[in-house]
Amino acid sequence: MPPKQPSEAPKQSSEAPKQLSEDCPTVADLSESELLALIFPRLNSSPSVLLGPGDDAAMVAATDGRTLISIDTQTQDQDFRLEWNNGYRTTGYDVGWKSAAQNLSDINAMGGTATSLVVSLTMPPATPVQWVEDFADGLTAGIIGLGVPDCSVAGGDLGRGREIAVTVAVVGTLAGQTPVLRSGARPGDVVAVAGTLGRAAAGLALLESDVTVTDLSDEQRALLDSQCRPLPPLAAGPLAARSGATAMMDISDGLLRDGGRLAAASDVILDFDAVALKAHALPLEPAAALLGVDSMPWVLGGGEDHGLLATFPAGIQLPQGFTAIGSVQAVVQSHGSGVRIAGQAADTVGWDHFAD
Amino acid sequence: MPPKQPSEAPKQSSEAPKQLSEDCPTVADLSESELLALIFPRLNSSPSVLLGPGDDAAMVAATDGRTLISIDTQTQDQDFRLEWNNGYRTTGYDVGWKSAAQNLSDINAMGGTATSLVVSLTMPPATPVQWVEDFADGLTAGIIGLGVPDCSVAGGDLGRGREIAVTVAVVGTLAGQTPVLRSGARPGDVVAVAGTLGRAAAGLALLESDVTVTDLSDEQRALLDSQCRPLPPLAAGPLAARSGATAMMDISDGLLRDGGRLAAASDVILDFDAVALKAHALPLEPAAALLGVDSMPWVLGGGEDHGLLATFPAGIQLPQGFTAIGSVQAVVQSHGSGVRIAGQAADTVGWDHFAD
Repeated sequence: MPPKQPSEAPKQSSEAPKQLSEDCPTVADLSESELLALIFPRLNSSPSVLLGPGDDAAMVAATDGRTLISIDTQTQDQDFRLEWNNGYRTTGYDVGWKSAAQNLSDINAMGGTATSLVVSLTMPPATPVQWVEDFADGLTAGIIGLGVPDCSVAGGDLGRGREIAVTVAVVGTLAGQTPVLRSGARPGDVVAVAGTLGRAAAGLALLESDVTVTDLSDEQRALLDSQCRPLPPLAAGPLAARSGATAMMDISDGLLRDGGRLAAASDVILDFDAVALKAHALPLEPAAALLGVDSMPWVLGGGEDHGLLATFPAGIQLPQGFTAIGSVQAVVQSHGSGVRIAGQAADTVGWDHFAD
Repeated sequence: MPPKQPSEAPKQSSEAPKQLSEDCPTVADLSESELLALIFPRLNSSPSVLLGPGDDAAMVAATDGRTLISIDTQTQDQDFRLEWNNGYRTTGYDVGWKSAAQNLSDINAMGGTATSLVVSLTMPPATPVQWVEDFADGLTAGIIGLGVPDCSVAGGDLGRGREIAVTVAVVGTLAGQTPVLRSGARPGDVVAVAGTLGRAAAGLALLESDVTVTDLSDEQRALLDSQCRPLPPLAAGPLAARSGATAMMDISDGLLRDGGRLAAASDVILDFDAVALKAHALPLEPAAALLGVDSMPWVLGGGEDHGLLATFPAGIQLPQGFTAIGSVQAVVQSHGSGVRIAGQAADTVGWDHFAD
């Protein structure tokens, strides 16, 4: 159970983190129903949610007789810090947006479209009410901003804990399409990605650096935003499904690691093209130079952009938003499934191969 | 946001609670995939889950074109203690069972039947692997033991945190039935309950007492089990829906509090019958006497039995499992909706009314 980023030991927060105990109303000042009364008006509504909050369960349309479902948790000091090394403070809005984004991405990765979220928010009593209002605003902004207005929050759960933890379960529809699995890649397919690679990882490196936010360029600040409020390409999943994608998944743990999972599920080798990877690393080089590191590890190891990794039959025109980054090859008997870069096993490829 | 039980300040656990750092393999010793390989064989499968773990989302049948969904979190030191005052240690099995029970109950309360769970488990690295295996066993045992074998775990998420937290989202079907809401109670209806009242609260009181487990009678030990592994009446919800229940909810926060919610949603008064309540308190009296307290507060305020509170049109035969405990009355203009006992506002009824 390796931790998600940040991978280093987090700053330990006390039960009432400093950031959370400043002079402002906290959730301890309100009853659950008072808090819900502040949250509900900040949520959008959608026709898919046939019965929203207020009963023991919500009811959501599942028009093709099937429903997609996934669940993800973000935990303070594991998946985000309330205050980063560079001074940036994670807002409730950030956490709400990211919760929406990473869950909507899971449905996108199947070729589906999300129809509703149910949200469990656990937090210390010293959490400011404003943080919770911002969280609700961020959830809604993420849903709308990422282009899924037919999705809305159908219900939830509030509780206390020593740290902030947000768990979202997302429900979605395939609208009659066949789901695209990780296991369908075939030798000869084209490997392609949609969305960005490495931007969220670059943003994380900036957050953990000593370069304060005010010293960042607009472009560097945008990298930080990619970590805090990712922009998964939510139109690309259903489009890929309709275009005949043979396999697909979202890149949440990094191209090499997730590519290895897709390769294992399909029992194939994914061979990435070094030049194509380089094209993703190039725009990150100013930030890498600022921090004195290479940009390629962000491209290969960074996941939280929530881009899509997909395979398509050779010869078809890739759907809008996808660019080719390699090919699928058959497993050679002496080797198992896995990921290669320019024909070499990825774990033997040093980062120097891609440095200037 | 009042805490669930236990309501008193919990024992603070360190990052690696003593119970969790004994000489045994911990989750820090395993990769996520190794841990999943231990969990999966312990889970049941069901025909409702069309696509299980392994992709970015699962796919579940929703044969009537709608899906019920709810989410609930249990957090260490808020919803359970790893070690209680009386020496009882909460097992992974307990937490797994209870996670299943309280989520299955939410679907039951709508008149539906659960078809799948998705489970997010957050835990400190020092958590024993055995605890996680027990958790998976408890989930499965709860699903099967509570009589919902067509439900299974469709997917999940593992992560690190400073405390154990389990969030389960449950998906269910109404099989074409109309959902039973909290808002449908009408003056003249009969108020009825299914399942037990106060047993889990009695169990909680025993756990927080100085009476060690070994000094408990079998019956008292069974009360403790009601807190740790509740037995919601999962056949009763769909049966109530088919029998014409006008309103329903599960009693997760206590009869008076949840009754007040149903009364408010329906804009009526629920008038409970003192004799009927007494019948629920009577079997709890030996445990109450052991602790030197009254049993009626457990009946009126205890919730974690996850029984059902429902209203039915007067004159119909109550479905199996339900017993009448009162009647629905119209709101009198000078008073709002609410709960009464024998015609008196419940908050003015002292517990002494029900003591021997």
